[in-house]
Amino acid sequence: MIFSDFGTKLNTHSGILQLMDDLGKPLPKGIPSYQLGGGNPARISQVEKIYREEMEKLLAQKDGFENAVARYDAPVGRISFIEVLTDYLSATYNWKITEKNIAVSNGSQSAFFYLFNLFSGTTTQNGKKTKKTILFPLVPEYVGYADQGVEEGTFVSVPARCEYYDDNTFKYFIDFPAVEAYLAEHSEVGAMCVSRPTNPSGNVLTDVEIKKLSSLAEKYQIPLMVDNAYGLPFPNIVFTDDAKPYWDKNIILSMSLSKIGLPALRTGIIIADERIITAMSNINAIAALASGSLGQILAEPLVKSGKLVSMGRDFVRPFYEKKSRQMQDWIHEEFHALPYGIHKSEGAIFLWLLLKDLKISTLELYSKLKDRGVITVPGEYFFFGLGDQPQHPHYDKCLRLNYSRDENEVHQAVKIIADVYRQNIR
Amino acid sequence: MIFSDFGTKLNTHSGILQLMDDLGKPLPKGIPSYQLGGGNPARISQVEKIYREEMEKLLAQKDGFENAVARYDAPVGRISFIEVLTDYLSATYNWKITEKNIAVSNGSQSAFFYLFNLFSGTTTQNGKKTKKTILFPLVPEYVGYADQGVEEGTFVSVPARCEYYDDNTFKYFIDFPAVEAYLAEHSEVGAMCVSRPTNPSGNVLTDVEIKKLSSLAEKYQIPLMVDNAYGLPFPNIVFTDDAKPYWDKNIILSMSLSKIGLPALRTGIIIADERIITAMSNINAIAALASGSLGQILAEPLVKSGKLVSMGRDFVRPFYEKKSRQMQDWIHEEFHALPYGIHKSEGAIFLWLLLKDLKISTLELYSKLKDRGVITVPGEYFFFGLGDQPQHPHYDKCLRLNYSRDENEVHQAVKIIADVYRQNIR
Repeated sequence: MIFSDFGTKLNTHSGILQLMDDLGKPLPKGIPSYQLGGGNPARISQVEKIYREEMEKLLAQKDGFENAVARYDAPVGRISFIEVLTDYLSATYNWKITEKNIAVSNGSQSAFFYLFNLFSGTTTQNGKKTKKTILFPLVPEYVGYADQGVEEGTFVSVPARCEYYDDNTFKYFIDFPAVEAYLAEHSEVGAMCVSRPTNPSGNVLTDVEIKKLSSLAEKYQIPLMVDNAYGLPFPNIVFTDDAKPYWDKNIILSMSLSKIGLPALRTGIIIADERIITAMSNINAIAALASGSLGQILAEPLVKSGKLVSMGRDFVRPFYEKKSRQMQDWIHEEFHALPYGIHKSEGAIFLWLLLKDLKISTLELYSKLKDRGVITVPGEYFFFGLGDQPQHPHYDKCLRLNYSRDENEVHQAVKIIADVYRQNIR
Repeated sequence: MIFSDFGTKLNTHSGILQLMDDLGKPLPKGIPSYQLGGGNPARISQVEKIYREEMEKLLAQKDGFENAVARYDAPVGRISFIEVLTDYLSATYNWKITEKNIAVSNGSQSAFFYLFNLFSGTTTQNGKKTKKTILFPLVPEYVGYADQGVEEGTFVSVPARCEYYDDNTFKYFIDFPAVEAYLAEHSEVGAMCVSRPTNPSGNVLTDVEIKKLSSLAEKYQIPLMVDNAYGLPFPNIVFTDDAKPYWDKNIILSMSLSKIGLPALRTGIIIADERIITAMSNINAIAALASGSLGQILAEPLVKSGKLVSMGRDFVRPFYEKKSRQMQDWIHEEFHALPYGIHKSEGAIFLWLLLKDLKISTLELYSKLKDRGVITVPGEYFFFGLGDQPQHPHYDKCLRLNYSRDENEVHQAVKIIADVYRQNIR
């Protein structure tokens, strides 16, 4: 069977495929499983209750449910949802946006597929063809981006600077001089992209850092994509005080309903320059016709009343912050005799564990852990775009661990990881 | 703002953009509107009742609703839904399929975007690059395909043969000698594609024609995509007896929950060779992470019990067949003094109206009709892939009319179309 180059590129063995494979398929029976792999959010009872109420209201309303499932929305999204979101964001955060600055997609993964390929790959300018790239100013970065370019070699990155602390923690920082130098020397960069909070490390770029990136974007006349899937103002899985909701005209801000409880309703939201929104809407029409309506419908009254934001602040953030601290405590307990580090947990639903003296790669460790029922994501997948640069020292020494599962599951998994690390130490 | 070639290609002014634009945005106030444009299905009370019941069951079940919205499915789709569908289709129609032959996408538009680009465009074989094409053996064909190739010039087509009848009707046929000649002379064809029923014309390819296409696919070792969005066994908007549910190993069969009442839940289903399913699942992981779950969840028990198929047969087909006859009657009444033709209405939710003596293009007619509040789709968009071949004689002489709206709306619209045609006759 012969596939095109497009098909071949999107069928290479990729991190996201392995991750999603683990996520969707039940594990073999007879072995307890510890699912620290994918990005499934936790079930939070107060949040679930609110969506259930909205769904019941929809069913109680004459034709409410029928109108929700039985008509296509516009490719740009549901007009009433976009209007409500525009009003809320502009009134609350003083963002200079109108409804022409917002588009909706079938989840933010689809939005990034469109965006990366809109701003990278073969590009014709004044009759000349160049190959544009996407610059990731801080790797490790989200595994789900790594294979989204339909052409080879369009993703480039700058490795994170790292500071280590005495309490077995560490933190990544953007190497700004390196990023500035890269931009100055590479006119083919078509856009930059960061996730905030960073998936996988749980790093949260500060307002100062984001504004610095935005002014670089302005200087080089390229957009800065900010993946806000775990961020502010919702779902608000951010534990620091140095980050506020932020958007400006250089930024393509991506938001999502997934981590605030509705991943299976596939709702991504893009806030950007009007021209980008028009382009996203056009691509969505051609590639997907329209986006699913139900996530937007359930969220619309919650945006309007401010409840979506308050439930992030009151339920979602405290829930995850507690889970994160708990898992960190367990790691410190179980690993105390071992050389290790945990990235500062500033947000998102993962801990990023550094196993300095691991004598095998984390890909191999992943496989040994899977044999013991523990699903994780090996760190190698999160380092991409480095080309010929030397690999980051953390390349095959880190695991991404989702801490959103049950206490007992997480605790047992930590014990097993410590045990397997102990058996495979240098 | 500079877009890549990918972005530019998917942002050209396309028929599907205009169509979806009309569909999503409310018309200006103060003018009654007659929405015969998009592909929105009708609301059918018996069908709505069944989905409402399923939704209520889900809410009544402990954690039923929460499990439906709060967890990602695998990129290939919801495993339990795929299993149920596999069992039903193999037991009922004796199709030789396992669960490895089915994948789910966020609507069939997304599935076709993946499929077209998997089998066309730049392709590397034995180190050599060729440019593969998709052959449409019968145009006019669905407007939504026309712009789905990410490279230019990858779609090719063979114009329909046409027979005219005394009762102001006509019917398209595949010009098999022309299709065979094209395949024999063009080794770059990577796949063929037909919709069945055909969107826009309401033509339904017979089992004999489909098997003939399938054997050509086998001969040239390329897949035959069959877009079954309006077809058999569900939603069963097929009014002839010459078509049965059909799948074989040369066929990529695309099905959908949209026209059986759930367009806003975006659920497409692909049945194909295992290698194609694996590729589709991989592309879906990278480009969309996972598909929405709720359509699959509502449909699963209905597939299992056979109710999805019986509600197609008992409610959906008779409903549309009656609507189609009604609109045809009105057209015959209002157009009797004018030169016109209606394509034989064998399926789908559209009539395809030929206005032989129109002195303007149907693009211009579309615009004049829009001024009177009547939204239609001009025929030009459905003729694509002809390259340097002479344009089909129907090219700018046809309108696609969705007949699924209220009686009164459809009836009034027919009168206005007749009136505007009368004013613009040669």
